[in-house]
Amino acid sequence: MTRTYLIKPILDHTYPLITHGKGIYLYDDQGKKYIDGSSGAVTASIGHGVQEIINAMKEQSEKVSFVYRSQFSTEVAEQLAKKMSDIASGDLNWSFFVNSGSEATETAMKIAIQYWQEKGMKTKTKIISRWMSYHGITMGALSMSGHIDRRKWFETTLKKYPAVSPPYYYRDTHGRSVEQCDEMYAKEFEKEILRVGKDNIAAFIAEPIIGAAGGALTPSDQYFKKMKALCDQYDILFIADEVMTGVGRTGKMFAMEHFDVVPDIMATGKGMSAGYTPIAATVVSEKVMEPILNGSNLIMSGHTFSANPQSAATALAVIEYIENNRLVEKSAEQGAYLRERLEQLAGKSAIIGNIRGKGLFVGIEFVQNKETKQPFARTDQVVSKIVTTNFQEGLLVYPANAGVDGVNGDAVILAPPLIITKTEIDELVDRFARSLAKVEHNLMGKELIQ
Amino acid sequence: MTRTYLIKPILDHTYPLITHGKGIYLYDDQGKKYIDGSSGAVTASIGHGVQEIINAMKEQSEKVSFVYRSQFSTEVAEQLAKKMSDIASGDLNWSFFVNSGSEATETAMKIAIQYWQEKGMKTKTKIISRWMSYHGITMGALSMSGHIDRRKWFETTLKKYPAVSPPYYYRDTHGRSVEQCDEMYAKEFEKEILRVGKDNIAAFIAEPIIGAAGGALTPSDQYFKKMKALCDQYDILFIADEVMTGVGRTGKMFAMEHFDVVPDIMATGKGMSAGYTPIAATVVSEKVMEPILNGSNLIMSGHTFSANPQSAATALAVIEYIENNRLVEKSAEQGAYLRERLEQLAGKSAIIGNIRGKGLFVGIEFVQNKETKQPFARTDQVVSKIVTTNFQEGLLVYPANAGVDGVNGDAVILAPPLIITKTEIDELVDRFARSLAKVEHNLMGKELIQ
Repeated sequence: MTRTYLIKPILDHTYPLITHGKGIYLYDDQGKKYIDGSSGAVTASIGHGVQEIINAMKEQSEKVSFVYRSQFSTEVAEQLAKKMSDIASGDLNWSFFVNSGSEATETAMKIAIQYWQEKGMKTKTKIISRWMSYHGITMGALSMSGHIDRRKWFETTLKKYPAVSPPYYYRDTHGRSVEQCDEMYAKEFEKEILRVGKDNIAAFIAEPIIGAAGGALTPSDQYFKKMKALCDQYDILFIADEVMTGVGRTGKMFAMEHFDVVPDIMATGKGMSAGYTPIAATVVSEKVMEPILNGSNLIMSGHTFSANPQSAATALAVIEYIENNRLVEKSAEQGAYLRERLEQLAGKSAIIGNIRGKGLFVGIEFVQNKETKQPFARTDQVVSKIVTTNFQEGLLVYPANAGVDGVNGDAVILAPPLIITKTEIDELVDRFARSLAKVEHNLMGKELIQ
Repeated sequence: MTRTYLIKPILDHTYPLITHGKGIYLYDDQGKKYIDGSSGAVTASIGHGVQEIINAMKEQSEKVSFVYRSQFSTEVAEQLAKKMSDIASGDLNWSFFVNSGSEATETAMKIAIQYWQEKGMKTKTKIISRWMSYHGITMGALSMSGHIDRRKWFETTLKKYPAVSPPYYYRDTHGRSVEQCDEMYAKEFEKEILRVGKDNIAAFIAEPIIGAAGGALTPSDQYFKKMKALCDQYDILFIADEVMTGVGRTGKMFAMEHFDVVPDIMATGKGMSAGYTPIAATVVSEKVMEPILNGSNLIMSGHTFSANPQSAATALAVIEYIENNRLVEKSAEQGAYLRERLEQLAGKSAIIGNIRGKGLFVGIEFVQNKETKQPFARTDQVVSKIVTTNFQEGLLVYPANAGVDGVNGDAVILAPPLIITKTEIDELVDRFARSLAKVEHNLMGKELIQ
């Protein structure tokens, strides 16, 4: 190839070409084999080349791949919606299918705004979200996101939504208990509600466990109970962004189950189709649907490909595969084993400061000094070195901000396919350990030169 | 089915379930056969159940369906990008793949903003667009859209972009020549530029032929030349939204070719995969890429499924099918025949006021009085009656605003698959004529009762 016509993340970088994939492995055209330790972008949850999914896709394509939702429905789209209702908690029964996580959080945002309008409260339009969050790249989704790197070019065009701190016990428990931290987060949230005015707020949106913006920052058992209580007290809807955490990733079908809180609206995607097709969903509670059903009788959104049968059949096959193979339970079991192996490694590592997450969604934060928790300088490019070295070792890990202050902080996420075995986890951790040793050596070497 | 869990456009409406499709036909579970006269949402351009596409999808699924663009590329994504460069005009060489038209116009918007930032002009962030336009449903795309119905719930949340009139000769030539209309549109655009200030404007976005918001409103040969000249004069990028018109729909590969103007950035989708998978693209010129390649070396956007090989292989197969079967040329030929048949019908109809469009993208505007061009009252629900009656007759037509004043005006779009034959066009027009007669009878009957 003399030149590329494809816009890639780094424009002049050459990315290896993948020729095929099977299970947790991807193979490039030079014969190199990679462990997909991140499921791509925390997406390929059931691994690559699963025959059941290939069959389901083919079967649907032989019937019909596309109908337009304003004209028709299909049995398979209805079945997928029923399945979402079955796997989602509480009264989260209604699904609006879209093409991406960004579209799912935007749809959630719009439904929240519409909900209050149907109830005659037209000023309730603002969304409260958290610094250290990522809800997607389209303008509405990015407005809600506290991801400085992804916002910076568009700051003047974006609405300035993110406002409150996320739970970050690794740093915030400095002189405080977890309970005291939770009190502090709740107080900050309540202050923000009072400042903006409950009559102006439609919803609070949060990732149950923070992904790209926080390296799997995980709340306590009580955090979301406290936040939801404030939402209820001030008539604010709670939107859970489960795009990264949903459909088994964290050892529960949806991560909010860990915290025993049912959101009013839920966005999910990624693992929902495990990468086999673009699809995502906004799942809405009966509570939220009720005034809409009794009011305008429509939800003002729509995408050409919404509920297209080809994507619906694919996602349905993926979710059934997850159920049939007990992958939610396996995520919890294998996640515990991965965590155990990583904790052992942390004991020997000079730079692993914190390990967090649930199930097969594990964040690892790196620090210069484990005692003081001082983050590395940006110029050290620690995440980039960890990701690149692992890549060379044939292991994919997902880069994340640690979120110390929105700029500093280094973390990666390990999130292999939920089908991973203990032997494969051992192989994964061995490669990770080798890469880490190289990076540590490199960082130490650098210090010696200084 | 006792209840539905799927959020449909009208929540309590029962939509027929499609079981399969072949060519221009869709079949529901009651055995009813529909002519897909709208290609769904102007999407299923090559018809349903095309074996070549089914094969290509299966073949790719057996290799690999998903890789993450921040880690890898694939030969097929590279090939699709090369193909887009080949079929797009001028120096439109670089493709950013996304999942929907909304994401494509949002990406175009962001790249335009970034372009000026890379050149050190940080205040050039606003986008000028036109009332009577639809660029998508996510918040950034909807901000640019002059589609009152789709905006109204979110008006306070949206940026207020749309500002200038679209070309609408059917109404605006009242006492003016087409040339004088074009002068008027250009003057209005220039006034808006001067009002907002060229230093604040990143881009002008327009659909070459207006879809949902205008019922295929078609500019003169000169209109876009004049608009582009103003863009160049005032350092404003021109974004063509070819989501609905692209990839053969109008009898050219892209509709801007009719007007001999090469945009700086182009968004396309829908017909690009003909409905077989969600995918869309933002195609960027060398001119726009140049300061980015020499600057930050990255385009600040990204979607999980961007350039996923499963969707790339599908779209590539669709475009090759279009090329191999000369469907762009056929769109022009069969479009001319459809137009001829509809003009004959218009002569006999009491309510067809205007027929417009290019190729197999035909808009039909309905009026109460062909002489005065007076639109119907909203309470007459003419579009709804036309769409519903045709649906009963087994013909799908696409509803559109005529755009008289943003509220009034009735139009539909006929946009059958590009594979349609003359015999099938005859069948389509016969069904349309029967439905129209029924609606006219209904409307006249109503008048008699008054």
